[in-house]
Amino acid sequence: IQTKLPKVGTTIFSVMSQLAAEHGAINLGQGFPDFEPPEALREAVSRAMADHKNQYAPGIGIGPLREQIALKIARLYGCEVDPATEITITSGATEALFSAIAALVSAGDEVIVIDPAYDSYEPAIELQGARPVRVPLAQPDFRVDWQRIREAVTPKTRMIIVNSPNNPSGSVFSRADLDELAALTRGTRIVVLSDEVYEHIVYGPEGHQSVLRHPELAGRSVVVSSFGKTYHCTGWKLGYAVAPTALSQEFRKVHQYLTFCTFNPAQWAFAEFMADCPEHYLELPAFYQAKRDRFQALLKPSRLRLLDVPGGYFQLVDYSAIRDEDDVDFSRWLITEAGVAGIPLTPFYAEAPGTRLLRLCFAKSEATMEAAAERLCKL
Amino acid sequence: IQTKLPKVGTTIFSVMSQLAAEHGAINLGQGFPDFEPPEALREAVSRAMADHKNQYAPGIGIGPLREQIALKIARLYGCEVDPATEITITSGATEALFSAIAALVSAGDEVIVIDPAYDSYEPAIELQGARPVRVPLAQPDFRVDWQRIREAVTPKTRMIIVNSPNNPSGSVFSRADLDELAALTRGTRIVVLSDEVYEHIVYGPEGHQSVLRHPELAGRSVVVSSFGKTYHCTGWKLGYAVAPTALSQEFRKVHQYLTFCTFNPAQWAFAEFMADCPEHYLELPAFYQAKRDRFQALLKPSRLRLLDVPGGYFQLVDYSAIRDEDDVDFSRWLITEAGVAGIPLTPFYAEAPGTRLLRLCFAKSEATMEAAAERLCKL
Ligand SMILES: CSCCC(=O)C(=O)O
Ligand SMILES: CSCCC(=O)C(=O)O
Repeated sequence: IQTKLPKVGTTIFSVMSQLAAEHGAINLGQGFPDFEPPEALREAVSRAMADHKNQYAPGIGIGPLREQIALKIARLYGCEVDPATEITITSGATEALFSAIAALVSAGDEVIVIDPAYDSYEPAIELQGARPVRVPLAQPDFRVDWQRIREAVTPKTRMIIVNSPNNPSGSVFSRADLDELAALTRGTRIVVLSDEVYEHIVYGPEGHQSVLRHPELAGRSVVVSSFGKTYHCTGWKLGYAVAPTALSQEFRKVHQYLTFCTFNPAQWAFAEFMADCPEHYLELPAFYQAKRDRFQALLKPSRLRLLDVPGGYFQLVDYSAIRDEDDVDFSRWLITEAGVAGIPLTPFYAEAPGTRLLRLCFAKSEATMEAAAERLCKL
Repeated sequence: IQTKLPKVGTTIFSVMSQLAAEHGAINLGQGFPDFEPPEALREAVSRAMADHKNQYAPGIGIGPLREQIALKIARLYGCEVDPATEITITSGATEALFSAIAALVSAGDEVIVIDPAYDSYEPAIELQGARPVRVPLAQPDFRVDWQRIREAVTPKTRMIIVNSPNNPSGSVFSRADLDELAALTRGTRIVVLSDEVYEHIVYGPEGHQSVLRHPELAGRSVVVSSFGKTYHCTGWKLGYAVAPTALSQEFRKVHQYLTFCTFNPAQWAFAEFMADCPEHYLELPAFYQAKRDRFQALLKPSRLRLLDVPGGYFQLVDYSAIRDEDDVDFSRWLITEAGVAGIPLTPFYAEAPGTRLLRLCFAKSEATMEAAAERLCKL
């Protein structure tokens, strides 16, 4: 049978989670917390089910939830967004990314993807008959080298995908990065697809530099975020996309035929919870900074070298003092020999740089972190 | 801004539901019940949330649910399906349809679509750079005219989309239809995409003629079904696709980057409920036949002519004795003047036949049916 995606196998996240399960390894691979969403939120889902919210939601998502998102965006980023025409609820951030690419990228277009990059971008681009143009982040700090991006732009460039906080590296945009991005796209037909699923997990005093903070960029961007990452419920698969009306219109054309709408009871639950508890996301940086610092302290005695983590909930570790082998092999060895699962960086690249880095998720309970650290410190 | 889908506006289902809400009309348009999913099922979702099922499910869906589906398929259709490699849980049937088309249809391919057809097929095909080749069902009974389908097949034909029970007409396949489809596709590269979301709502003694009953067809088909239609929870957005391993492999490549996985707590709930209550779907034909018969009795005094309903939960009515205008105009008039919303058939066609038919959903409580009938009988 002919395939449209010859390079694609099973996503690395599924592969490593399954391997972890088979070997009973502690799973610090796929990015999800091992603790629970707020009880009030789960109760609100149950209440919504009891309250007849079990049939189709509007395709674009329920009004009260879109309104809460608009309020949040105004509060955090000083940006006025119209919930009626500029916000769409999706089946997770993944669907939002796919819908944006399918709606806006055509055959023959080029899309700039910054490596390392989340693995869903490239197949989504290729399915449109478009070409991903991959530009690496600078080493060793994983910041965007804007000069290299500028060199990659051509008249065919239709989109650039940015991702701050970056998965897997944890690097974050500064205000200067937003200005560079604005200068780069000014006067072009380039749409910015900004994957901001870790928007509430930024540790520095500047906070998250959403493209929504930058009016010029906001005017040409689709911004994607995730309820799963923010509210500890990755398995609920709720996300959203924010874009100016004209872009949202194209986005919605595709979204309505991709999934139509998303699990309705959770939409009502989030609308209620966001109104009642805005402090949840306000407290998230401190919550995860404590986890990050604890995880780093636990790993201090190990032979792993820890990289800085400005954002997100992943710790990159350099394992070269332990074994001199590529990261895919090392990650398998680590599962079978040490009982800990991480994610290698190679699958995030078109051309793997051959670094000796592994990604470990620290969105974990104290007990999980301790158990994993104990195993890792023995190596 | 350039659009990839110039013919597409907001889907008719959203348009009519919004119009119904604005005018406080009784909504017999978009296909959803106005009654609730079983309480045991809702409780099972709440239990799954309490039981730590809030993070990512496996991308292909949880094992126990895929096993229940395999058991059901074996029981009802005598077909052995491997849940590990041939069943994938999706974010509703809509996502399954889109993933199948995106995975299997390439630029330049032709896809046969039988009119009237659900409105998501064509945009999904066009987004692949492929061409929908639309062939009408025979009039007046909405059965497939296989001779016309044969004439539409070319070497470029990659897929044929079939839909029994048919939405909107309610016509159903006979065993002879399956044989015709098998003969037609024999020796070709044509994949059958079989939209069987109303599989449990067939009224005749022969029952639902799934392509899975026909080993030759099962070997070249992607079969799509819906938990929402079967379990009265269209807003939960859970569906699945069944296909031979080689087709499932391509399907899953796309699915994993489209939504990755689906609301996890509901997957556990359905796995439990399907094991405990197989009688739910076994009793569905009688349940809906009673509603159909009641709705028809209530409309008997009206000036609407009622068409036969062999399957599904939609009643087609001929309104030509009431008004001589096209169905899109009539459906708007009916909302504003009579306070009842239905769905016109024109949007289901590439070339509307100009019939005077409206689709009314009878997946409604006694009170709703009575109230709607009272209004309709006044016309
Ligand atoms: C959808 S599985 C991948 C989850 C994730 O965001 C990650 O681990 O990077
Ligand atoms: C996804 S909205 C359309 C629901 C439906 O199946 C129908 O009304 O035909």
